[in-house]
Amino acid sequence: METTVPKISDFPTGEENTGYAQYFTGKSWNAALTSNKDLNVPMNNITFEPGCRNNWHRHTGGQILICVGGIGYYQERGKEARQLNPGDVVEIAPNVEHWHGAAPDSWFSHIGVACNPQTNENIWLEPVSDAEYTAAVK
Amino acid sequence: METTVPKISDFPTGEENTGYAQYFTGKSWNAALTSNKDLNVPMNNITFEPGCRNNWHRHTGGQILICVGGIGYYQERGKEARQLNPGDVVEIAPNVEHWHGAAPDSWFSHIGVACNPQTNENIWLEPVSDAEYTAAVK
Repeated sequence: METTVPKISDFPTGEENTGYAQYFTGKSWNAALTSNKDLNVPMNNITFEPGCRNNWHRHTGGQILICVGGIGYYQERGKEARQLNPGDVVEIAPNVEHWHGAAPDSWFSHIGVACNPQTNENIWLEPVSDAEYTAAVK
Repeated sequence: METTVPKISDFPTGEENTGYAQYFTGKSWNAALTSNKDLNVPMNNITFEPGCRNNWHRHTGGQILICVGGIGYYQERGKEARQLNPGDVVEIAPNVEHWHGAAPDSWFSHIGVACNPQTNENIWLEPVSDAEYTAAVK
């Protein structure tokens, strides 16, 4: 079923994120914002439908999230979740296990910045269960 | 004279950019958005008052501009200027001479992303003259 994505930021929404769907619970969209590999700062705007989140994962090079639209959440393993709003920036240190996604009742967009792309690997782990998600966002 | 900076984006404005004032025509403000040096992606939100622009300059590692508020301009040496609006992203290749700043009648904010910070140097050149600026933004 085709989903209509609301306009929640000034940045492009891109295409449905089918390539990473196996690592997400719910639908997401992906727009590449950069292409010059000499700059070593790949950036993508990721949009999550309400309730959508990615699996627990870590980046060996780290990641930065720049929140640009809607309301979301970020959680590191063993810590309280943090609510995210436009204008928030999250610095995710290398190898810290975490997940991010939308609030249950809001779309959410963040620019995801891949750090140290020359060596970075994304290590995908198990999904965030409904019980974990519900506890995190309440 | 204290200037009141209007709220034109969701990102912080920070402090008046006195450290770089020698390389700017007009007043600007600077808010650091990141601090973890392991990520190798320093980001600052820079806010320009109307008419403010930085000198011609280049970055040996390149730079990315993420436009988040108001209206601005970006020009590479020998090319037409490009108007910038929220949601625009500018990829500046290493060593390309350029300037950026606000429109004559609008405040402007962009997140400036320093690329390849391990080796980057910023090379500052001459100011953008009133004649160059007026021609660029008309």
